[in-house]
Amino acid sequence: MATLSDIGVSAAINILSAFAFFLAFAFLRIQPVNDRVYFPKWYLKGLRSSPLRGGAYVSKFVNLDFRSYARFLSWMPAALQMPEPELIDHAGLDSAVYLRIYKIGLKIFVPIAFLAFTIMVPVNWTNKTLERSNLTYSDVDKLSISNIPMGSRRFWTHLVMAYAFTFWTCYVLKREYEIVAAMRLHFLASAHRRPEQFTVNFHMVLHLALVVVGAQVLVRNVPPDPDESISELVEHFFLVNHPDHYLTHQVVYDANKLSELVNKKKKLQNWFDYYQLKYSRNPSRKPLLKTGFLGLWGDKVDAIDFYTSKIEKLTKEMNLERDKIMSKGNSVMPAAFVSFKTRWAAAVCAQTQQCRNPTLWLTEWAPEPRDVYWNNLAIPYVSLAIRRLVIAVAYFFLTFFFMIPIAFVQSLANIEGIEKAVPFLKPIIEVKVIKSFIQGFLPGIALKIFLIFLPDILMVMSKFEGFISQSALERRAATRYYIFQFVNVFLGSIITGTAFQQLDNFIHQSANDIPKTIGVSIPMKATFFITYIMVDGWAGVAGEILRLKPLIIYHLKSFFLVKTDKDREEAMDPGTLGFNTGEPQIQLYFLLGLVYAVVTPFLLPFIILFFVLAFVVYRHQIINVYNQEYESAAAFWPDVHRRIITALVVSQLLLMGLLSTKEAAQSTPLLITLPILTIWFHRFCKERYQPAFVKYPLQEAMMKDTLERAREPNLNLKNFLQNAYSHPVFKSVDETETEPASQESEQEPVLIPTKRRSRTSTPLPSKHSGSSSP
Amino acid sequence: MATLSDIGVSAAINILSAFAFFLAFAFLRIQPVNDRVYFPKWYLKGLRSSPLRGGAYVSKFVNLDFRSYARFLSWMPAALQMPEPELIDHAGLDSAVYLRIYKIGLKIFVPIAFLAFTIMVPVNWTNKTLERSNLTYSDVDKLSISNIPMGSRRFWTHLVMAYAFTFWTCYVLKREYEIVAAMRLHFLASAHRRPEQFTVNFHMVLHLALVVVGAQVLVRNVPPDPDESISELVEHFFLVNHPDHYLTHQVVYDANKLSELVNKKKKLQNWFDYYQLKYSRNPSRKPLLKTGFLGLWGDKVDAIDFYTSKIEKLTKEMNLERDKIMSKGNSVMPAAFVSFKTRWAAAVCAQTQQCRNPTLWLTEWAPEPRDVYWNNLAIPYVSLAIRRLVIAVAYFFLTFFFMIPIAFVQSLANIEGIEKAVPFLKPIIEVKVIKSFIQGFLPGIALKIFLIFLPDILMVMSKFEGFISQSALERRAATRYYIFQFVNVFLGSIITGTAFQQLDNFIHQSANDIPKTIGVSIPMKATFFITYIMVDGWAGVAGEILRLKPLIIYHLKSFFLVKTDKDREEAMDPGTLGFNTGEPQIQLYFLLGLVYAVVTPFLLPFIILFFVLAFVVYRHQIINVYNQEYESAAAFWPDVHRRIITALVVSQLLLMGLLSTKEAAQSTPLLITLPILTIWFHRFCKERYQPAFVKYPLQEAMMKDTLERAREPNLNLKNFLQNAYSHPVFKSVDETETEPASQESEQEPVLIPTKRRSRTSTPLPSKHSGSSSP
Repeated sequence: MATLSDIGVSAAINILSAFAFFLAFAFLRIQPVNDRVYFPKWYLKGLRSSPLRGGAYVSKFVNLDFRSYARFLSWMPAALQMPEPELIDHAGLDSAVYLRIYKIGLKIFVPIAFLAFTIMVPVNWTNKTLERSNLTYSDVDKLSISNIPMGSRRFWTHLVMAYAFTFWTCYVLKREYEIVAAMRLHFLASAHRRPEQFTVNFHMVLHLALVVVGAQVLVRNVPPDPDESISELVEHFFLVNHPDHYLTHQVVYDANKLSELVNKKKKLQNWFDYYQLKYSRNPSRKPLLKTGFLGLWGDKVDAIDFYTSKIEKLTKEMNLERDKIMSKGNSVMPAAFVSFKTRWAAAVCAQTQQCRNPTLWLTEWAPEPRDVYWNNLAIPYVSLAIRRLVIAVAYFFLTFFFMIPIAFVQSLANIEGIEKAVPFLKPIIEVKVIKSFIQGFLPGIALKIFLIFLPDILMVMSKFEGFISQSALERRAATRYYIFQFVNVFLGSIITGTAFQQLDNFIHQSANDIPKTIGVSIPMKATFFITYIMVDGWAGVAGEILRLKPLIIYHLKSFFLVKTDKDREEAMDPGTLGFNTGEPQIQLYFLLGLVYAVVTPFLLPFIILFFVLAFVVYRHQIINVYNQEYESAAAFWPDVHRRIITALVVSQLLLMGLLSTKEAAQSTPLLITLPILTIWFHRFCKERYQPAFVKYPLQEAMMKDTLERAREPNLNLKNFLQNAYSHPVFKSVDETETEPASQESEQEPVLIPTKRRSRTSTPLPSKHSGSSSP
Repeated sequence: MATLSDIGVSAAINILSAFAFFLAFAFLRIQPVNDRVYFPKWYLKGLRSSPLRGGAYVSKFVNLDFRSYARFLSWMPAALQMPEPELIDHAGLDSAVYLRIYKIGLKIFVPIAFLAFTIMVPVNWTNKTLERSNLTYSDVDKLSISNIPMGSRRFWTHLVMAYAFTFWTCYVLKREYEIVAAMRLHFLASAHRRPEQFTVNFHMVLHLALVVVGAQVLVRNVPPDPDESISELVEHFFLVNHPDHYLTHQVVYDANKLSELVNKKKKLQNWFDYYQLKYSRNPSRKPLLKTGFLGLWGDKVDAIDFYTSKIEKLTKEMNLERDKIMSKGNSVMPAAFVSFKTRWAAAVCAQTQQCRNPTLWLTEWAPEPRDVYWNNLAIPYVSLAIRRLVIAVAYFFLTFFFMIPIAFVQSLANIEGIEKAVPFLKPIIEVKVIKSFIQGFLPGIALKIFLIFLPDILMVMSKFEGFISQSALERRAATRYYIFQFVNVFLGSIITGTAFQQLDNFIHQSANDIPKTIGVSIPMKATFFITYIMVDGWAGVAGEILRLKPLIIYHLKSFFLVKTDKDREEAMDPGTLGFNTGEPQIQLYFLLGLVYAVVTPFLLPFIILFFVLAFVVYRHQIINVYNQEYESAAAFWPDVHRRIITALVVSQLLLMGLLSTKEAAQSTPLLITLPILTIWFHRFCKERYQPAFVKYPLQEAMMKDTLERAREPNLNLKNFLQNAYSHPVFKSVDETETEPASQESEQEPVLIPTKRRSRTSTPLPSKHSGSSSP
């Protein structure tokens, strides 16, 4: 068991390392040479130009204004200054609402911590249960519920506190749901459609793409018809069934083969660039290569000529393929983006069932063009149902078989366990610093390493499952990641850490004994989770702001590859918020905070510090760095709400289990009403606020339509909507013909990160390209 | 343990009693005097007139045509002859689809029984496990899975059979869901709106009321507005938000006080009639009564004068109240029935969210006028949410505290238990006939008595919960009744019957031990459930056709009260199907059949016989007797489907538990995939077919609109829809003024069972009035 001083050492290490990160960041960010790493958002918005132009040569790279070094934490207040409406305008609603999650954390836990420390901690501290017992205990335990004697009447305090915490949490959640729902509706309503905006700077796309969402609907599973093409069929169907409202539509092409070719070409282009560079460095020797397997044998040829001819051949092939797709009907997928004359009509179409067979002519709100995940648009219904089953089973196995290695590492990270396993190491381990170090770092790091590989697997799963928008993919991946963390990090740490030997015993317990077993272990694991919060939370957040990986990559790229300003722009990797990993992590802290609020309130300050740090850091990053790939208008909020509620219910059940082992069983009826009330509250909120995230009220649509008609009566929507939704590969094909140099390889075939200033709706080269670049 | 001969005796008793019922029915139904008891449906449809008019005096009451006695089972083929489309036309879709539930039972269990008896029974029979063991066993057990030795490889047969049964059941379910969904859509689509039909015979309302459903939407939770009345508000809202489609609307009046007065008047009227009758029998003595408390003291007055004046006063009061309601705005409830010009527009409005706040301006399909439950139209949203919570908690307690008396009676009904409890009764009980009798009847009857009081409580619960249509009330009550039966009849019988002493033990078992405990008890309870099926199923169905209670009541009424033909018509009590009690009962048989299919196939023939009998009897009753109160167009089918799936999953889990105790644990992985596949199948079906029961496809609506427009271009819908939805109490007020004699007291204040030939949409005097009449 870790003592207070263990935690002190660990906290000191972590605070120092966080401080070091901040210091490094403060130093690096004011160097002009790093400007594009730490302020890419402003470059992408076209509001900041390279400091490399003009001025003294040295000051292009190094900041010589020493006064600026003194104000090394000045970014913090700066990050907090931008008001929320401006932030929404600057970075989109998703980002602004994402920050509200951290704020909710503070709103929930600051009053809870205050209450806990003024009322509950004194009640816990003034007992002598632990002193009198033969158990080893630390000072942390003296502050916790463990210090209350069996069957004491002092448990009433904890009961009342559990009620107070629950009501406070619910109150904050309800208010926040209300605010976010209103923000979303306001955001959607204030999206304009003004065609001229589509011709401006590419970087402005961020907001403008939303524009189209207002009156477009995605229709999928269009049934095949022997007499009509998909396009004709769609047109006829909507002309018949929405006669006064249908405007136009765009079919979706199956461009998977084309995007394969584009990818292939990209790779060849990379090699070509490589040899070109080699040649330009050393013009005396023409680079040669062997044409055989892996370049190990075969004829030697001039590499540049070889790749030039290959690229030429491929370009021809691509053009052919493109013409084939566009001319023949059989590349048209049974899906289309349908535009309506009014938002009202689009709202109607998206919310209603079109056809007798509910698996055909499925309509829904068209995701924002950048948000569309093109590969999944054509999956038929039965296939979708089967994929869901397959993924559910696969996910189950993934979640429960992952536990084995984690449990193993966890048990190693237990000092006593190591000493037992390898007794000859005992003298080394018993050195105080090493012991603290092992106990402070090892368990957290071991877990973290396992978890790094997970999000990608989960994203692949979501993609296979057939979601049609990036935002939905990320939301689903986030849900899975959360469940995984709940089972493996939270439950896994609690049960295996103390009860690896009890596991077998545990499987054969009754349903109402499980909360007991976990509840009893909870207070014992407080110190472990405190360490986890420090390593994963504090240091993680501080590391985030340093952006070490993008920094190194940017400098490598700009040293080796960058020839023009455009190349430099492409070398920037702004990244995104990463909802699918970031949100579940926050949720784990909510869970820990709520579970330990009544049991070991000593954990709360650590969590609050995490939320404060994270809020400031992410606010800074959102303002200066991240560039969201899409805008879902905070569609993720119901998930956030649901998970906090889940955490609340789990905390209540575990408290019930814990108290029932403390001979305070008379509290069970009072405690069991808490989860019932909480679940009821959740259902209430869901019905009250969730529709704002799923449906689009007709009243709003009508108001918007009326306004728009009055403001721009002659707007020609048809032309304006003609090309809003087209597969990005077509754009990128045009692109690659004019731009020979493109350095990035892609994970996904269709999201080609080319830079186009003249057209809209291309996905920006952000997270995906970033994470896979060398 | 009951032996085969016990079962034989019991079966004989039950078959004989069923036969006696049928015989009695055959005799009674051809007596002209009973004509209105056994053929009320035809009277209500106006297709049959009273045999009491004309002809010889005796033959008015007694059938003298002795040949007709010989063909005493002729009603059976007659009941089966009417083809389904005609049945739908005759009795509505609800009734026709209800019959399909019995048919599904046959479709599922006949092939399963065939397979079980040809393959599984020989496999079970050819073992000697039971003979070699020291256990007492009966021949029934020799046919069951109990006869297979531990860990035998013969369990593979049961495993394969479980798969076969599951696939067959799912196949039947899917096909049936498909057919019913198509029937529903066809039924809705073929409902016409032809105003002239509204003026014909009152009894024709059955189908015609549906007519209106096509283009009307119920809007609730209209927010209060200081400047406008509800009616103006509704008009403005829909004129703004559905400008091209809004036609007209009808507000809903809060007539609760008026209906109270109507009820009061009804009671007075009853007393008046009573004294009038008394006086007419004995004109020499004027009936007197005391005006004091309960008529025990006070001044003596002439009873007829007393009631006449009282009724007059009340009538005045009623008129005042009615004028008040109609004139002042404050009796208008925040709800309205909104009519649209087209079905398309109504479909749109019903499926979309109107307002930013999803708890205001709630729209949904207007239920059929007869189906509306007026009292609940004005409940605000928050109140609804709280009511739901309250009822959920109340229902939980009802379900789990009801178990105690049932368990007590069940344990008494166990012969060995009785002998132990009261040893001096042993000689009497040991008499063979008495023993069989007790074992055959007692457990079933004890349960049945408990269950008789339940449906009313559940209906009251549903009403309190705030459903707005009769059909929804009945569906919810049915769901609750099913869960109750599952917990108390099914689980209760299995666990308490054999394991009353093990109950305490059982509570502390782990989640995966529970299926084992129940699974092990399952084969032992086969004989109990066979008896239950015979008593509750066979005899119950046979009793249903005899209609003993309505028969007696009709003759009492027609002897004492009937003065005119109209009175005689009112004395008829056609009754309804009673979905809220009938369907859960059938579902219990599905559960028993599926659970025992693999374990003790000997039970299957009993269930099949039940389904055959019930099918024939209910078909006969639907054709000749029942008069449905409303038409929900088979809205209950998703519930039926879900419950059969539940039964399937339960049967699979219990089989898993049973096999794992039989040392056939290697089958667990194979068995666990079955519930997963079944649940997946359910989700698939739900997404594929359920929308047909919830939404109304726009394509269908548009087709219907186009057709109608072509057929009747000049239809003036507005006049036609003006009074489609008005609170029945207004009609009944008019009514009572012209019709002095009305004999029935009411359970519910607003469904006044008056007979009106000239107006539409009054609830028919059927179940509710019937069940509460003396």
